Amino acid sequence: MPKNRLEAFSDGVLAIIITIMVLELKVPRGADLATLAGLLPIFLSYLLSFVYVGIYWNNHHHLFHATHRVTAAVLWSNLHLLFWLSLLPFATAWMGQNQFAPLPTALYGVVLLLAALAYFILQQVILADQGPGSPLAVALGPDWKGKLSPLFYLAAIPLAFVNPWLSNLLYTIVALLWIVPDRRIERAFAKR
Amino acid sequence: MPKNRLEAFSDGVLAIIITIMVLELKVPRGADLATLAGLLPIFLSYLLSFVYVGIYWNNHHHLFHATHRVTAAVLWSNLHLLFWLSLLPFATAWMGQNQFAPLPTALYGVVLLLAALAYFILQQVILADQGPGSPLAVALGPDWKGKLSPLFYLAAIPLAFVNPWLSNLLYTIVALLWIVPDRRIERAFAKR
Amino acid sequence: MPKNRLEAFSDGVLAIIITIMVLELKVPRGADLATLAGLLPIFLSYLLSFVYVGIYWNNHHHLFHATHRVTAAVLWSNLHLLFWLSLLPFATAWMGQNQFAPLPTALYGVVLLLAALAYFILQQVILADQGPGSPLAVALGPDWKGKLSPLFYLAAIPLAFVNPWLSNLLYTIVALLWIVPDRRIERAFAKR
Amino acid sequence: MPKNRLEAFSDGVLAIIITIMVLELKVPRGADLATLAGLLPIFLSYLLSFVYVGIYWNNHHHLFHATHRVTAAVLWSNLHLLFWLSLLPFATAWMGQNQFAPLPTALYGVVLLLAALAYFILQQVILADQGPGSPLAVALGPDWKGKLSPLFYLAAIPLAFVNPWLSNLLYTIVALLWIVPDRRIERAFAKR
Repeated sequence: MPKNRLEAFSDGVLAIIITIMVLELKVPRGADLATLAGLLPIFLSYLLSFVYVGIYWNNHHHLFHATHRVTAAVLWSNLHLLFWLSLLPFATAWMGQNQFAPLPTALYGVVLLLAALAYFILQQVILADQGPGSPLAVALGPDWKGKLSPLFYLAAIPLAFVNPWLSNLLYTIVALLWIVPDRRIERAFAKR
Repeated sequence: MPKNRLEAFSDGVLAIIITIMVLELKVPRGADLATLAGLLPIFLSYLLSFVYVGIYWNNHHHLFHATHRVTAAVLWSNLHLLFWLSLLPFATAWMGQNQFAPLPTALYGVVLLLAALAYFILQQVILADQGPGSPLAVALGPDWKGKLSPLFYLAAIPLAFVNPWLSNLLYTIVALLWIVPDRRIERAFAKR
Repeated sequence: MPKNRLEAFSDGVLAIIITIMVLELKVPRGADLATLAGLLPIFLSYLLSFVYVGIYWNNHHHLFHATHRVTAAVLWSNLHLLFWLSLLPFATAWMGQNQFAPLPTALYGVVLLLAALAYFILQQVILADQGPGSPLAVALGPDWKGKLSPLFYLAAIPLAFVNPWLSNLLYTIVALLWIVPDRRIERAFAKR
Repeated sequence: MPKNRLEAFSDGVLAIIITIMVLELKVPRGADLATLAGLLPIFLSYLLSFVYVGIYWNNHHHLFHATHRVTAAVLWSNLHLLFWLSLLPFATAWMGQNQFAPLPTALYGVVLLLAALAYFILQQVILADQGPGSPLAVALGPDWKGKLSPLFYLAAIPLAFVNPWLSNLLYTIVALLWIVPDRRIERAFAKR
C-alpha cells in the first residue's frame, strides 16, 4: 500500500484539529480591552496546543518521509494517534475556559500522554516492519526526546493538583524541546 | 478520468467528518470530575463513530487502490456514500446527548445501514466497470463482512426499542469485525 | 503555474463547505419522533445543497482535467467561485430554519445564480487562455446546461415571493439536469 | 525534505480558515429583509478577510512554486505564518459583530501586521537557504508590496481610534494592491 493517502488524510485531520481549536476563542460581546484581556487564558492554551499539533505534524512528516510501506497495522496505529490528538481541542478549551484549573490541566496532560504513547506505538510498528538497522532506526537513535516526554507528562498530571502552573511549565518545556526541530532524520538522509 | 482528485476530495470530507464530531463534545462550564463524567456517553458515542469513519476510510483506501478508472457513476456513488457518512456526526451527537435512548440509537443504526448500502453500491459500480475476474473481484471474494454488516444493522434498529444497549453491542461487534483489517486486497496484491 | 495546488485547495474548500453544512442540522434536545420530524426542512435543504456542491465539484473536476495552465486570472476566478459557494451553508440553513419562507428561498437562488455566473466566468477565462478549437471548447460545445441554469435561477428568485415551492422545484430541476453527469468532456477525451 | 506535504498541510489550514470564517455569519431567527441587512457588517468583514486569505494562498503558492528544499526553519516559519492567519476568523468576527468599532478594527490590523511579518520572515528564510541570485530572489526584486503593506497596517492600527473607516480603507487598499496578482514570479519563470 502506498503512503500518499495516509499522509493526505493525516494532513487533513491535523489541519482541521489545529484550526478548529481557534473556534473555542469565542467572539465576545463587548468591544473593549477588558473583554479582550479576559480571553488571554484561552489564547495561551490555544498557542500551546497549536505548537503541540505543529510538533506532531513535523514529526509525522519526518517519520513517514522515512517510511515507504504502509501496512494495516500502520493504518490503525496512525488512526489511534489521530484519535487522541482529536481530543486536544476539547482539552485545550476546557483548560483555557477554566483559567488553568487543576483538573482541566491534568486532563490536558492525560491527552498529551496518550498521544505521545500512540506516537511511540506508531513509530515502533513502523520500525518493526522495517527491521533492525533501517535508515529510520539509525536516524532515530536512542530517541531520548520521545522517551523523556511521556515522563514529563506523567509528572505534570499529579502536579496539576498541587500547582497547575508547574504542570503548564512542564508542558511548555517539552514543547520547547521539540520545537528545536528534530534534525536527526533530516541529517541522516542528507548524509546519504 | 484519473482517481487522484476523487481520493483527495473523499479524504478531505472524511477527515472533516471524523474531526467535527469532536465539536459535539461541548466544553462544559464546571471544572470538576462530575462534569467530566457527565460527558462519558458523548465520549463513547464519539469513540464508536471515530472507529466507524476510520473503517470507512481504510476500506475506501483499499477499494480505490484497486481502481484505476473513475466514471461519472463512480463519482456519484462516492458522493452518495459521503452524504450518509456526513450524517454520522449528527446521529452520534443525538445518541450521545440522549444517553443512548431508543430512537437516537435506532437512527444511528439507520445511518450506518444507509452508509453500508451506499458503500456496497459504490463497490458494485466499480466491479461492474472492471468486469468479472478483475483483481478487485478476486480480492474481495465472497465479501461476507460486507454482506453481514447490513444484516447486523437491520437487526439492531428494531432492537433499540427493546434495549438500546443490545443495538450498541451489535454496532460494536460489527466495528470489531472490520477493525481486524481487511487484508484480502492487501494479500491479493502482495501475491502478484 | 501547475494546477495541482489549485485543485487541492479547491477540493479542500469544497470538502469543508459540503461538510459544515451538516453542522446546521443542530442536535435537538428531545429524543422523540416529533423532534426529529421538525428537522425535516433543514434536512431537505441540506440534501439539496449537498447535491449542488457535488455538482460543482464534479464540474470543477472535469473543467480542470481539461486545463493544464493556471494563470493569475484563473486563480482569482476560482477564488471568486469559491466565495459564492462558501455562502451556500448560510443560505441553506436560513432557508431550512425558516421552512422555505419567501425571502430565504429567494436568497438561496441569488447565491446559486452568483455561483453559476462565477463558474461561467472561470470557464470563459480558461477557454480564452486555451484559444478557440481547444479540446475543452470542443467538449463543452454549445454548453446549453451552463446557459440555461442561470435563467432558471433568475426565474426562481421573484417566484419565491409568489410561491417558494415553485422556486424550490426549479432548483431541484436544475440539480437533476446536472446530476445526469456531464459526459461531454469525458466523451470527448475518451474519443481521442 | 520534499515540499509536497508542507503545501498540502498549508492548503488544508488555509482552506479551513477561509471557510470557517463564514460560520460567524450566524443564521438569524427572522426571515425578513431587516434581519438580513443587519448582517451586512459581518458580511463585509467576511469579504475582506476572504480576499486576504486568498491573497496569502496565492502568494504562498507562488513562493513555494519557486522553492524546492524544505528545511526545519522553513517548516516552523510556515507554521508561524499559519498561526497568525488562524486568528483572522476571530478578528474578522469581532470586528464585524461590533460594526467596525475602534478596538476590534485595530486588532484586525494587528493580526494582519503579524501575519505580514510572519510571511516576510518565511520569505527571508527561504531566500537565505537559496542564496543570493536565486530565481526567487530575482523574481521578487525589490518587493515593494511586501515592504509597503506592513507600513499601511502600522498606520491603520492607531488610526482606528480616530476613525475606524480610515483603517478599513487602508486594509482595502492593501488588498487591492495585492489582488492585482503578483506576476513577478510568474513572469520570471515564463521567461526561462
